[in-house]
This record gives sequence, structure tokens and C-alpha cells, in this order.
Amino acid sequence: MSDLPKFVQINEEGPREGFQFEKGPIATDRKIALIDALSATGINHIQVASFVNPARVPGWADADQVVAGFTRKPGVHYTALWLNQKGLERAIATERLDIEGSLSLTASAKFLARNQQRTMEENIVAAHQVLETYRRLGVPFKRAGIMAAFGCNYEGAIAHETVLDLMGQLLDVAAQHDLKPEVFSLADTMAWATPQSVKALVGKARDRFPGLRLSLHLHDTRGLGIANAMAGLEMGVDSFDSTVAGLGGCPFAAHKGAAGNVCTEDLVFLLHEMGIETGIDLEKLLDTAILAEEIVGHPLPGSVKMGGSLDRLRAQLS
Amino acid sequence: MSDLPKFVQINEEGPREGFQFEKGPIATDRKIALIDALSATGINHIQVASFVNPARVPGWADADQVVAGFTRKPGVHYTALWLNQKGLERAIATERLDIEGSLSLTASAKFLARNQQRTMEENIVAAHQVLETYRRLGVPFKRAGIMAAFGCNYEGAIAHETVLDLMGQLLDVAAQHDLKPEVFSLADTMAWATPQSVKALVGKARDRFPGLRLSLHLHDTRGLGIANAMAGLEMGVDSFDSTVAGLGGCPFAAHKGAAGNVCTEDLVFLLHEMGIETGIDLEKLLDTAILAEEIVGHPLPGSVKMGGSLDRLRAQLS
Repeated sequence: MSDLPKFVQINEEGPREGFQFEKGPIATDRKIALIDALSATGINHIQVASFVNPARVPGWADADQVVAGFTRKPGVHYTALWLNQKGLERAIATERLDIEGSLSLTASAKFLARNQQRTMEENIVAAHQVLETYRRLGVPFKRAGIMAAFGCNYEGAIAHETVLDLMGQLLDVAAQHDLKPEVFSLADTMAWATPQSVKALVGKARDRFPGLRLSLHLHDTRGLGIANAMAGLEMGVDSFDSTVAGLGGCPFAAHKGAAGNVCTEDLVFLLHEMGIETGIDLEKLLDTAILAEEIVGHPLPGSVKMGGSLDRLRAQLS
Repeated sequence: MSDLPKFVQINEEGPREGFQFEKGPIATDRKIALIDALSATGINHIQVASFVNPARVPGWADADQVVAGFTRKPGVHYTALWLNQKGLERAIATERLDIEGSLSLTASAKFLARNQQRTMEENIVAAHQVLETYRRLGVPFKRAGIMAAFGCNYEGAIAHETVLDLMGQLLDVAAQHDLKPEVFSLADTMAWATPQSVKALVGKARDRFPGLRLSLHLHDTRGLGIANAMAGLEMGVDSFDSTVAGLGGCPFAAHKGAAGNVCTEDLVFLLHEMGIETGIDLEKLLDTAILAEEIVGHPLPGSVKMGGSLDRLRAQLS
């Protein structure tokens, strides 16, 4: 396990994912409270809001108010999600966000058709348009990604070659705009990955694109999220998306209430127990996970907030 | 990952663990229904009851009735737990169980003192007495084990050398009775293990005791159960204890409701997705996990019963 990184970058997506997914209306000040609590944990990258159509995502109708209300902590990057130029312009207009351009392709043609009503070819055309918009609006291009990289509910297994070819296409598109992403994310959007497939695909991606920093966006819908993260760590991956308490769910799961994103504090617990640094205070993060549960008003998936950290036990022993 | 086994033995402990841990009285016929459902899944080793003091474990006051009531399926081993000769004699008297002698030492002196009011030396004396009882009652010695092998809430980290030395002592005790266990279990009783420590300890145990079949008893209290199982698989471990739906809990966790044993169907999902055989029908097992949840009357930790299996999705695609 010589490839285990010494430091791992955690990209917290709890606020954006969670408040997008929750059914009940959550007061704006509670959303702000969660963001402020996350800021205090040492997490340095938080996706705080989603600038999407309020008619389709009512949970983010108050995105402007949330972004206006939280307290910016120096050293923390506060990002947002948008799906089109209008959303991006709203995010920029807040003047309180770190606008980080991202661009993803989807590895499953059937999922792409269903989810975005596009062909793979049309998606490449759209990718050029996105980068052109970034240039015009002065948005730095930070992050590339492949969605459904490990499998798809509508297409089944996705060949590793398909993913690697798409990665190459996306990097080519970027290069045509004189751009290179700082990090390349592989997303297990519908929770098809196993530790074996994570190791295999990450290994091939490292071979094909040496020097490219990889990030994993993992889902825990079928209980393999942490095991898949461990597989990524063993392949040297040092950047992960996650959500505090496992906020958010999975629209593609068999039952409502299934887990969605891998849980931040469980991942941080794993990392710290293996001596890998994150810059995060796990005890504060556990308190924040319990706050998240209070805010949404129902149990959330994370385990360590229930089981308790080992550092607390160690402190009692010494 | 060349050491991944081709077949894994699952030792189902859900009935025994679950009905021991649950607070509410559960009707005897519901306990029997769960055992019969488990028998239909293809699981070939089920710990069905606990013959312990009913005053201390009221959930198993009906152990005799449960064992009298379930239907034995050919090829399935039905075992039970006992903590002393009286319990063992009750188990034997049912004439419906596969009486498999086991013997465990505890790696933490503080936990041993607290849990069994014994010193490490007294525990070795007691081990001889257990094997003598097995001989006298004609009980085959099947399984050795070390509890708290990865850490202890009362003692903290446990040195690998301590565990390896205890393994050697236990094998020596057995050898003095001309016995050798079929399998040697390492138990993460209080959920201190990480994938890293599993790999390290299993690796050292394989080096020290070549040819000894190892088994892992893992807890998911802090969310690492499946990742720790994966680490064991990568070190060639081909035998695991688990509980359907994650039945049972953890008396050593920070909060009630924390997860206990690693969940059988999540583990079987992991194995099957990596092409490792178990002889188990995952779809039947998922139905059984949902039955377990109905029986105990509250949500249980397993993920795949919520997220849904991929085989069901694949069947819809083809």
C-alpha cells in the first residue's frame, strides 16, 4: 500500500446535495448554519448551493439568500453548482463564491439521452460551448469529470476503454481552448463500482494520463462507498467528494431513503485512523453531522456519528 | 489482488446476535421464520440461538423452543452460542444442532477483566477446561478465535505481537489436547480495525502460522466493515462472520442504534460483484433482510436492501 497519499483533499458537497434532495422545506437560516458549521471543521472546499431552476429544484429556490447569508472563512473555497449559463451568471452575481468551472461528460449514452436529451456527439459540442462561456465570463476551468464511469442503471457495465477514451476527448476539448483541468473526477453516479473496478479503472487512467490528478466521486447506495474510497487511496487518489452525514440520497436507488454520496466523517475517520491528514477536525465534523441530522429532521446514513470516534475513547484512556 | 479467494464461506450470525440485542420481545415463531428464510438463501452455516442465562439475556429465554421449531435443511450447519457447560449441555440436549466447539481468547487484558473477571493467565487455565469439557461431551473442536484483536475501548490499540502470541498460545493449548481448529477467527469486537490494520495483522498471522485457515469477525460500528472485509479478501481470507441486514448492534458504541456486525447481504453483494462465489442467492437474501427488518420493527443498517441489487437492474436491461 505504498501509494497511500499523505494528505487527502475533501470536497464537501453536503449542503448542495442535501438541500437539493430533501423533500421538506428547510429554513434558509438552517442551511446557513450548516455551512458555517462546516467552515469551522477545517474543511477547505464546500459546495454551498445549487443555482438551478427553482421550479424543478424547490429546495434551492433560496440559493441567493443562502449565499448572501453564510460567513466566509479565509482559506475556504465556497463553490456552487449550475447547469447552464443562467445559473452560472446567478452564481457570479452573488460576488461571494469561488467560481470554479467544471465540465463533465457522461460515459453512458443511454443515461445521457435520458438525463440530458443529448447524444454523445452533441455532448462534445456542448462541452466546447461551456468552455467558451467560461472564457467569456472569466471563469477559471478547474475540474473535468466523467459521470457514470463505473456503470449505469440504463446501460449496465461501462467498458473502461469507453471511460478512458472520453477522458481523452474531454482533455482534447480543453486543450483546444488552451485549458487543462486541475483535477479529473471519476464519478460512480449510480453506485456500480467495486474496489476491484476502482483499482482497475484508476490504474488504467494513471497509465494513460500520467501526471493527471484524479478525484473520486463515490456513492454508498449499495454499501461499498468507503471500500471503494479505500481502493482509490491504495491507487494514490488524494481527492474525494463527499457529504457530511451522507446528506443527499440516490434518485436511482430501489427505495427512497437509500444512501447517496459517501459520508464525509466516515471517510475522514478512515483517513485519520490510517495516519492520512485532511486538515479537518473530526470531532467538530461529527458535531456538524449531528447538526445536519437535526436540520433535515430524520436519520442520515453516516456511521461514525453513531459509533463514536476512537479519538474520544483514546482521550479517555490516556 | 491475486490473493482474492474464488469462494467465500459466510457464517450467518443474524438470528443469534439480533434476537440477543433487540429490546422488544420477539415472538418465537418470528425467530423461526427468519431462520427458515435464511435456510432458503443458500447460506450453509447459521448460528440460530444463544443458550445463555435468560435472566441476563431475556431475548434468548426461548432458545429451546426456537431450536425445536425451525426446519433443518440438508447441507446447512445450524450452530449455537453458549458461554459455559450448562449452556452447552442445553444446546446438545436439543438434538437438532450442529454442535461445533469453539474457543476464544481475548487480546485485551482490561476487556477480559471487565467482561469475564479473569486475568490472561486464568483465561489459559479456563481454555484447557473448555477443551476438556468438549472431549468429555464428545464435542468436535472447530474454531479458535481472538477477541478484540484490532483494538479495545478499555485498552486502546492492541499490538500485533500480542495477538500473534495469543494465537500461538491458543494453538499450543489445543495441541496439548491433540486438537487443531479448522479455522482461526480474528474478531474486531469493538470496531477498531482499518483496512490497513487488517492487512497487516492477517499478513503477519499468515506468515507466523502458514496453512492455518483464517476467518474475520468484523463490526461496522464506524462504517469500515465492508472496507475491512475487502482488506481481508485481498489477503486471501475466505471465511467471514456476518449478520443479515446488520442485525445486532454494538454495546460499546457511543450511541444506541449504532451498527454492529458487518451486514451479510452487503458482503455477499461485494463478493458476487467481484465474481467471488458464496453459494448464496442474493435476491432471496435481500428479501430475508427486509423480513428481518419487519420482525424487529425498526430500520436495520444494511445498504443493498435499500439501494437494490445490480442483478435486478441487469435483468431489466437484458
